[in-house]
Amino acid sequence: MTYNVQIKVMPLKDLLDPQGKAVLGGLQNLGVKSVNDVRVGKHITLQIDAASEAEAKQVAEEASKKLLANPVMEFYEIELVN
Amino acid sequence: MTYNVQIKVMPLKDLLDPQGKAVLGGLQNLGVKSVNDVRVGKHITLQIDAASEAEAKQVAEEASKKLLANPVMEFYEIELVN
Repeated sequence: MTYNVQIKVMPLKDLLDPQGKAVLGGLQNLGVKSVNDVRVGKHITLQIDAASEAEAKQVAEEASKKLLANPVMEFYEIELVN
Repeated sequence: MTYNVQIKVMPLKDLLDPQGKAVLGGLQNLGVKSVNDVRVGKHITLQIDAASEAEAKQVAEEASKKLLANPVMEFYEIELVN
Protein backbone atom coordinates (compact mmCIF):
# COMPACT_ATOMS: atom_id res chain seq x y z
CA MET A 1 0.00 0.00 0.00
CA THR A 2 1.06 3.56 -0.59
CA TYR A 3 1.24 5.82 2.44
CA ASN A 4 1.38 9.56 2.47
CA VAL A 5 3.79 10.85 5.08
CA GLN A 6 4.36 14.48 5.97
CA ILE A 7 7.60 15.56 7.58
CA LYS A 8 8.08 18.94 9.19
CA VAL A 9 11.70 20.02 9.62
CA MET A 10 12.16 23.16 11.73
CA PRO A 11 15.15 25.01 13.19
CA LEU A 12 15.73 24.10 16.84
CA LYS A 13 13.89 26.39 19.25
CA ASP A 14 17.06 27.68 20.90
CA LEU A 15 18.71 28.68 17.65
CA LEU A 16 18.34 31.93 15.80
CA ASP A 17 16.40 31.61 12.56
CA PRO A 18 17.67 34.31 10.18
CA GLN A 19 15.15 33.41 7.47
CA GLY A 20 12.32 33.80 9.97
CA LYS A 21 13.69 37.15 11.13
CA ALA A 22 13.84 38.32 7.51
CA VAL A 23 10.23 37.28 6.93
CA LEU A 24 9.19 39.06 10.14
CA GLY A 25 10.87 42.26 8.92
CA GLY A 26 9.21 41.90 5.54
CA LEU A 27 5.77 41.44 7.08
CA GLN A 28 6.21 44.53 9.24
CA ASN A 29 7.27 46.57 6.21
CA LEU A 30 4.13 45.38 4.45
CA GLY A 31 1.97 46.57 7.33
CA VAL A 32 1.27 43.23 8.99
CA LYS A 33 2.08 44.40 12.52
CA SER A 34 0.45 41.79 14.75
CA VAL A 35 2.95 39.04 13.96
CA ASN A 36 5.49 38.64 16.80
CA ASP A 37 7.65 35.79 15.72
CA VAL A 38 8.28 33.80 12.57
CA ARG A 39 10.16 30.58 12.07
CA VAL A 40 10.70 29.02 8.68
CA GLY A 41 11.42 25.37 8.06
CA LYS A 42 10.79 22.71 5.45
CA HIS A 43 7.71 20.68 4.77
CA ILE A 44 8.31 17.43 2.94
CA THR A 45 5.69 14.98 1.72
CA LEU A 46 6.76 11.44 0.90
CA GLN A 47 4.82 8.71 -0.89
CA ILE A 48 6.01 5.46 0.58
CA ASP A 49 5.27 1.88 -0.49
CA ALA A 50 4.98 -0.12 2.70
CA ALA A 51 3.14 -3.09 4.15
CA SER A 52 1.94 -1.25 7.26
CA GLU A 53 1.72 2.16 8.86
CA ALA A 54 4.55 1.27 11.21
CA GLU A 55 6.81 0.35 8.30
CA ALA A 56 5.96 3.59 6.46
CA LYS A 57 6.81 5.60 9.56
CA GLN A 58 10.07 3.74 9.93
CA VAL A 59 11.06 4.54 6.34
CA ALA A 60 10.20 8.21 6.93
CA GLU A 61 12.30 8.17 10.09
CA GLU A 62 15.22 6.68 8.19
CA ALA A 63 14.87 9.27 5.39
CA SER A 64 14.77 12.11 7.94
CA LYS A 65 17.86 10.87 9.73
CA LYS A 66 19.88 10.09 6.61
CA LEU A 67 19.04 13.07 4.47
CA LEU A 68 16.22 15.44 5.36
CA ALA A 69 17.09 16.89 8.77
CA ASN A 70 20.37 18.06 10.24
CA PRO A 71 20.08 17.20 13.95
CA VAL A 72 22.64 19.83 14.93
CA MET A 73 20.33 22.60 13.81
CA GLU A 74 16.92 21.08 13.17
CA PHE A 75 14.26 18.82 14.62
CA TYR A 76 11.66 16.90 12.66
CA GLU A 77 8.14 15.62 13.17
CA ILE A 78 6.59 12.81 11.16
CA GLU A 79 2.88 12.56 10.53
CA LEU A 80 1.02 9.92 8.60
CA VAL A 81 -1.86 11.14 6.43
CA ASN A 82 -4.68 8.89 5.05
CA MET B 1 -4.00 36.65 23.09
CA THR B 2 -1.15 35.05 21.20
CA TYR B 3 -2.03 32.44 18.62
CA ASN B 4 0.28 29.92 17.07
CA VAL B 5 -0.42 29.51 13.38
CA GLN B 6 1.25 27.01 11.09
CA ILE B 7 1.37 27.62 7.36
CA LYS B 8 2.31 24.96 4.85
CA VAL B 9 3.43 26.27 1.45
CA MET B 10 3.85 23.58 -1.20
CA PRO B 11 4.51 23.57 -4.96
CA LEU B 12 1.28 23.14 -6.95
CA LYS B 13 0.46 19.50 -7.69
CA ASP B 14 0.67 19.94 -11.47
CA LEU B 15 4.11 21.50 -11.41
CA LEU B 16 7.44 19.74 -11.42
CA ASP B 17 9.28 20.01 -8.11
CA PRO B 18 13.02 19.85 -8.87
CA GLN B 19 13.99 19.96 -5.18
CA GLY B 20 11.72 17.00 -4.49
CA LYS B 21 13.18 15.09 -7.44
CA ALA B 22 16.70 15.74 -6.10
CA VAL B 23 15.73 14.48 -2.65
CA LEU B 24 14.15 11.38 -4.21
CA GLY B 25 17.39 10.68 -6.09
CA GLY B 26 19.41 11.22 -2.91
CA LEU B 27 17.21 8.81 -0.94
CA GLN B 28 17.57 6.13 -3.60
CA ASN B 29 21.34 6.53 -3.61
CA LEU B 30 21.27 6.10 0.16
CA GLY B 31 19.36 2.86 -0.15
CA VAL B 32 15.89 4.10 0.80
CA LYS B 33 14.10 2.44 -2.11
CA SER B 34 10.47 2.37 -1.02
CA VAL B 35 9.90 6.10 -1.46
CA ASN B 36 8.03 6.85 -4.72
CA ASP B 37 7.58 10.55 -4.70
CA VAL B 38 8.89 13.52 -2.77
CA ARG B 39 7.67 17.08 -2.72
CA VAL B 40 9.43 19.80 -0.76
CA GLY B 41 7.83 23.00 0.43
CA LYS B 42 8.04 25.46 3.29
CA HIS B 43 6.66 25.22 6.77
CA ILE B 44 6.20 28.55 8.52
CA THR B 45 5.07 29.11 12.09
CA LEU B 46 3.75 32.53 13.07
CA GLN B 47 3.03 33.91 16.51
CA ILE B 48 0.18 36.32 16.10
CA ASP B 49 -1.35 38.75 18.60
CA ALA B 50 -5.07 38.74 17.94
CA ALA B 51 -8.39 39.09 19.71
CA SER B 52 -9.88 35.90 18.30
CA GLU B 53 -9.04 32.79 16.33
CA ALA B 54 -10.78 34.23 13.30
CA GLU B 55 -8.65 37.37 13.44
CA ALA B 56 -5.45 35.32 13.79
CA LYS B 57 -6.40 33.25 10.76
CA GLN B 58 -7.13 36.40 8.79
CA VAL B 59 -3.70 37.83 9.61
CA ALA B 60 -2.08 34.54 8.55
CA GLU B 61 -4.07 34.63 5.32
CA GLU B 62 -2.91 38.20 4.65
CA ALA B 63 0.73 37.27 5.39
CA SER B 64 0.51 34.27 3.04
CA LYS B 65 -0.97 36.32 0.23
CA LYS B 66 1.36 39.30 0.62
CA LEU B 67 4.65 37.54 1.23
CA LEU B 68 4.82 33.84 1.99
CA ALA B 69 3.29 32.07 -0.99
CA ASN B 70 3.61 32.69 -4.72
CA PRO B 71 0.19 31.69 -6.10
CA VAL B 72 1.59 31.06 -9.58
CA MET B 73 3.67 28.16 -8.29
CA GLU B 74 2.48 27.38 -4.77
CA PHE B 75 -0.58 26.75 -2.65
CA TYR B 76 -0.81 27.22 1.10
CA GLU B 77 -2.74 25.77 4.01
CA ILE B 78 -3.25 27.54 7.32
CA GLU B 79 -3.72 25.67 10.56
CA LEU B 80 -4.27 27.10 14.01
CA VAL B 81 -2.50 25.34 16.87
CA ASN B 82 -3.49 25.73 20.58
